[in-house]
Amino acid sequence: MTVYLVGAGPGDPDLLTLRAARLLGDADVVIHDRLVSAAILDLISPWAISINVGKDPNGHRATQSQINELLIAHGRDHATVVRLKGGDPFVFGRGGEEALALRANGIAVEVVPGVSSAIAAPAAAGVPVTHRNVSSGFTVITAHQDPANDRRLNWDALAQLGTTLVVLMGAARASAVGDRLQAGGMVPRTPVAIITAATTAEQRVARTTLGKLGATPVANPSVIVIGDVADDDLLSMAYQPLSQQPLTSFDELPTGAFA
Amino acid sequence: MTVYLVGAGPGDPDLLTLRAARLLGDADVVIHDRLVSAAILDLISPWAISINVGKDPNGHRATQSQINELLIAHGRDHATVVRLKGGDPFVFGRGGEEALALRANGIAVEVVPGVSSAIAAPAAAGVPVTHRNVSSGFTVITAHQDPANDRRLNWDALAQLGTTLVVLMGAARASAVGDRLQAGGMVPRTPVAIITAATTAEQRVARTTLGKLGATPVANPSVIVIGDVADDDLLSMAYQPLSQQPLTSFDELPTGAFA
Repeated sequence: MTVYLVGAGPGDPDLLTLRAARLLGDADVVIHDRLVSAAILDLISPWAISINVGKDPNGHRATQSQINELLIAHGRDHATVVRLKGGDPFVFGRGGEEALALRANGIAVEVVPGVSSAIAAPAAAGVPVTHRNVSSGFTVITAHQDPANDRRLNWDALAQLGTTLVVLMGAARASAVGDRLQAGGMVPRTPVAIITAATTAEQRVARTTLGKLGATPVANPSVIVIGDVADDDLLSMAYQPLSQQPLTSFDELPTGAFA
Repeated sequence: MTVYLVGAGPGDPDLLTLRAARLLGDADVVIHDRLVSAAILDLISPWAISINVGKDPNGHRATQSQINELLIAHGRDHATVVRLKGGDPFVFGRGGEEALALRANGIAVEVVPGVSSAIAAPAAAGVPVTHRNVSSGFTVITAHQDPANDRRLNWDALAQLGTTLVVLMGAARASAVGDRLQAGGMVPRTPVAIITAATTAEQRVARTTLGKLGATPVANPSVIVIGDVADDDLLSMAYQPLSQQPLTSFDELPTGAFA
């Protein structure tokens, strides 16, 4: 009778929270997005109902209102329902809308924050979103709307803000983002890092500049980081995803503090 | 011979990542900040060296260069050193500086992203940092410098940006932040939520407006959220910290996917 809006993190199952991992094992029903990785879905109990709302059997995506109806129906019928989203449920995950729909129908909702790709994808490429004397803040947006006609956001202010800019879901409009920021006064030589499939074994990092952003197609899913922190020379550490690391088992995890 | 820069998340030990929990149990040395909670420190192996750089025996805080020296010395002497920071290590954690110092001394560094308070503290108060038709992005800053004299950041652009604004470490300067944003054109009635000790049993949430921000003292540690998403009526769910929840044990965690 509780629906948990749970963040699945950026990709590597080892970046799930303890609580998310436990809820996946306990859930009666898991309703997940397309971008959640297979290794994470493997944590779902074999007795649970698992529904991919990113794609139906005919290859269609569920609409938000269909997802809301599904959550309400399962929230009424089952003790523990997990709504699993890539990254964090409140960072462009439409978690707020789902929470409102559930509450309006008398169903208890709880949010379990996750590691957001907005921060973890840059980190995985060795790019800190903040760095002393380089960047004293960061802004996270999407490029779902064409920046040339986007009235939700003040792009001129964005271009002049002075924080690191992180663009999620920006692959298709990378070039338009670059153009709009330059129109607002951001300089063409501003460093850019593009992190594709962050924290997974398929992770790739490309470096460019704002002036050349989009000249080479950007693959999905990618996180685009714009600002001096993205400079190649600042840091170039790479996150080692789980599959490349020696593992300890769960048996070795300390349990005392959780008792 | 590896120093892991590890995010401890916002407070609740259950919001540690699986990888962070495992590293805490495996580490030979853990060097942690003042803000990391006792319940998380309990996960450190009893055989490990644990050092609080937030406070020395005389009540002094270590300087950043002392911390760097400590990391380098232990990184040379031990196989697994964890540098544990509240939230995420690259969100105002000076993780980038520590990584550079370690690399310059030939010591391997790896970043393990964490759940950032910038996103999780608002979520814990039922405030989504993004919400359809309300906020299409968010900006995260600190108020370490007086906004009246801060030249790192374009505060006028910030006031006109149209994203949710999250202020970390802003307790002491809450009033100055409100004044500076209003001077930049942000309206006094803009909703504000102040989340203190987020995701812990001591969590408190206060609501105010930009015009009244700082009129009542803001306690430490607090996250201040400024924007329409902070409106009381949008969502008012509360995150239930670990201590108020029935727990399953680690034995019930699925292990297959990690093999």
